Amino acid sequence: MTPATAATICVPLSDSRANVKTWARTSAPGFVVTSPRRCSTLSSSTTAAATGQAHLWSVDEHLEDILGAVHPLEPIELQLLDAQGCVLVEDVTVPVSLPPFDNSSMDGYAIRTADVAGATEEFPAVLEVIGDVAAGSAGELTVGPGQAARIMTGAPLPPGAEAVVPVEWTDGGLGEGPVGTMNPHSSSPEGATGEVRVHRPAGNRAHVRARGSDVQAGERALDAGTVLGPPQIALLASIGRSSVKVRPRPRVVVLSTGSELTQPGEELAEGRIYDSNSFALTAAARDAGAIAYRVGAVADDAETLRSTIEDQLIRADLLVTTGGVSVGAYDVVKEALQGVGTWEEGAESGSGVEFRKLAMQPGKPQGFGAIGPDHTPLLALPGNPVSSYVSFELFVRPAIRALMGLKDVSRPTLRAGLSAEKPLSSPSGKRQFLRGRYDGEAGTVTPVGGAGSHLIAALAHADALIVVPENTTEVTPGTEVDVVLLG
Amino acid sequence: MTPATAATICVPLSDSRANVKTWARTSAPGFVVTSPRRCSTLSSSTTAAATGQAHLWSVDEHLEDILGAVHPLEPIELQLLDAQGCVLVEDVTVPVSLPPFDNSSMDGYAIRTADVAGATEEFPAVLEVIGDVAAGSAGELTVGPGQAARIMTGAPLPPGAEAVVPVEWTDGGLGEGPVGTMNPHSSSPEGATGEVRVHRPAGNRAHVRARGSDVQAGERALDAGTVLGPPQIALLASIGRSSVKVRPRPRVVVLSTGSELTQPGEELAEGRIYDSNSFALTAAARDAGAIAYRVGAVADDAETLRSTIEDQLIRADLLVTTGGVSVGAYDVVKEALQGVGTWEEGAESGSGVEFRKLAMQPGKPQGFGAIGPDHTPLLALPGNPVSSYVSFELFVRPAIRALMGLKDVSRPTLRAGLSAEKPLSSPSGKRQFLRGRYDGEAGTVTPVGGAGSHLIAALAHADALIVVPENTTEVTPGTEVDVVLLG
Repeated sequence: MTPATAATICVPLSDSRANVKTWARTSAPGFVVTSPRRCSTLSSSTTAAATGQAHLWSVDEHLEDILGAVHPLEPIELQLLDAQGCVLVEDVTVPVSLPPFDNSSMDGYAIRTADVAGATEEFPAVLEVIGDVAAGSAGELTVGPGQAARIMTGAPLPPGAEAVVPVEWTDGGLGEGPVGTMNPHSSSPEGATGEVRVHRPAGNRAHVRARGSDVQAGERALDAGTVLGPPQIALLASIGRSSVKVRPRPRVVVLSTGSELTQPGEELAEGRIYDSNSFALTAAARDAGAIAYRVGAVADDAETLRSTIEDQLIRADLLVTTGGVSVGAYDVVKEALQGVGTWEEGAESGSGVEFRKLAMQPGKPQGFGAIGPDHTPLLALPGNPVSSYVSFELFVRPAIRALMGLKDVSRPTLRAGLSAEKPLSSPSGKRQFLRGRYDGEAGTVTPVGGAGSHLIAALAHADALIVVPENTTEVTPGTEVDVVLLG
Repeated sequence: MTPATAATICVPLSDSRANVKTWARTSAPGFVVTSPRRCSTLSSSTTAAATGQAHLWSVDEHLEDILGAVHPLEPIELQLLDAQGCVLVEDVTVPVSLPPFDNSSMDGYAIRTADVAGATEEFPAVLEVIGDVAAGSAGELTVGPGQAARIMTGAPLPPGAEAVVPVEWTDGGLGEGPVGTMNPHSSSPEGATGEVRVHRPAGNRAHVRARGSDVQAGERALDAGTVLGPPQIALLASIGRSSVKVRPRPRVVVLSTGSELTQPGEELAEGRIYDSNSFALTAAARDAGAIAYRVGAVADDAETLRSTIEDQLIRADLLVTTGGVSVGAYDVVKEALQGVGTWEEGAESGSGVEFRKLAMQPGKPQGFGAIGPDHTPLLALPGNPVSSYVSFELFVRPAIRALMGLKDVSRPTLRAGLSAEKPLSSPSGKRQFLRGRYDGEAGTVTPVGGAGSHLIAALAHADALIVVPENTTEVTPGTEVDVVLLG
């Protein structure tokens, strides 16, 4: 993952690359930083950060700011199966009624009702079989008085016929009492001729599905905003749609930063650790519905980071970085991306990434903004594994789902009783997210591991986040707490 | 989708093709038809079907038979991100403790505790800054009495140091009171030298994460059977695993059959309908975790169907067909695949597909068996759109999840009060599955559309199946019913 160009990202991207991006989507993601609060609250984030006096953002404020700025992607026409999980942006009307013609709901015989009135097994109606009406056939036969056409499920009711008697109500043309099935046409073509004995009467339209009995032409099939799952795809196919206009899955580029990071599978030198964030967040982004690209780890060098990000912009609807956002001397994400209006000369004012402190634990340092000529949104998460994962759940997942045009962007929260041996303590003024295991039957949640943001093994054994509000410093066992179920 | 060969499937596949398959998986799916019940209950399914006297299978019996015969796929080693959603088949042990070394949990200064004892802002401890310890650095510095090393989050605690004081507890080396951040090393390299004033004392090991405090080398990281989500992938990466042994996602080939079927987007001739089943079931198979291939619609010709299936076997862990399984004269799936032991000459006895009648509505006719040299499982579903979708949910989804090695193969069932204007009627002796909309807050479910198995529009507006048991013929509003939530 070496950047292909040495140009810094302060230089606008060349026209040819911008054109490629425009071609790949019908328009740019439309991300423009316009939040008045951001402009007014933090007139100079650099100064504020340098003095440590920055506004402490709440979790809700930060999320609201992100969702206020991240707009759904422009819709594109996608083949039906490529649109699975996407949000429809058009109202789809039924062009042709379903079913398109009266057809049989059974394998049997198309008959005239008067001909089978009063029929019994002892005194069957004997009808002349005039041929087969298979599914897909186009009305070559007409059923006259005393006649029957052998008909298959889904085949059009032939002219003259008024109802269908199932094959099980007949002798199947064999003259030997009731049958359970027809003989295959391929091996017994004579079944389409001769006589059939019908053992039961049938009312008008019996076993006939009327044209339009499912939906009528002109009716609304699906509303804009519908998420396309298998049944919706079934309906679209059944009314002849091979493609639909939907918001595409966002392309999310994931980078981790840190000179200490080693690729898993390689040997671990002294003082170094394995890169796990880029794997975890790429997987989490896919889980949230995105097409995710894992770039991997970038060393703590601002120039390398800038050129890597520039390189990746071409395929990103959203950029996610981890690490380098805190108060250290090597926090290169902050160093490379901080500042408003300095990112791209000649661009609209307001572009840039802002770094904040949030009243939460873990995940205090966060960055959010827009970069590049398309104002591509970027979320800069902290580097501790648990911090970055929790931050993803709280902020990136909703951003991805907002880009998709989904309404429910966050995971649902439910209530559960705290199951623990001793009270949980939580820092005052911060919303704390602890890892837990949820027991749906008992309605309880049990903490797993401690609060440390490096406790990745505990995270891997959790299935829920326990939310302790800002003003709560202790939670005693048995208390009801908010729980966010993961996965 | 034209078969590449005119050979019938009764001829064993050539060795070269079998080898390709063996190469693609470490072994064949291992599907062998051994269910004693199948053999004893239905000594001759052809005869039984012909007389209509076949055993009526319950939903549970049919599912049990499928799950008894479908075995989890052989595990393969997959790259971490390719293993997402898969079941781990190895117990993974931690090779190196996490964290691998004592490291700082804060950006600050590594110090000796005696040097900062009693320090206050008014009477700070003044220490000599001997250099930077960045994350990823490998212990070049030793902290002596009266000395401090500037240290970053995640960086190894240098020899001699006993604790870390956060930068916010110091003047950051600037000599002007408390600071909130360090200046970037790249622009202010002098920050790694000179003096620092520390304003607060620190206890032994303060802000130090001990080696192994997350997990110890030799501990079990993850047990075999774990489903790999983002947090589990994070843990595997963090202990250096770049690949893991998992059961792969099954490759599911979906074919619809019927000469009446037209590809969506094309013009609809008289008597024909659009193919929706192959789209719906391909989407549903992906939803269930499979890699799904949509072959599309095959005309009602047994020879074409056989050669198409033979063609597809190479990439199938499971085959799913729709249509052609009932009692009509053109039910080619039944015609092509019926019979035990006739499928492949020279193969183990027991191969073949069996066609059954189930005590359910919709979905009465069903086929299940194994075909080809690898005894690839095949589920033959009925062709009505609602029947095939309900059959998928009840039988194919569990089969896919069983192939993945998952324990929870079926969707959970919950209870809800029936919200309806009039009682629901249900046929005696059959388990009925009606489409409904579930209201979680009210705890109710409301039927959508009627019982007709062609009502695809109603299915697209449902989010649940309402289950009416075999012995219930009427359900009055307000009664609690079983509900299966879809999607």
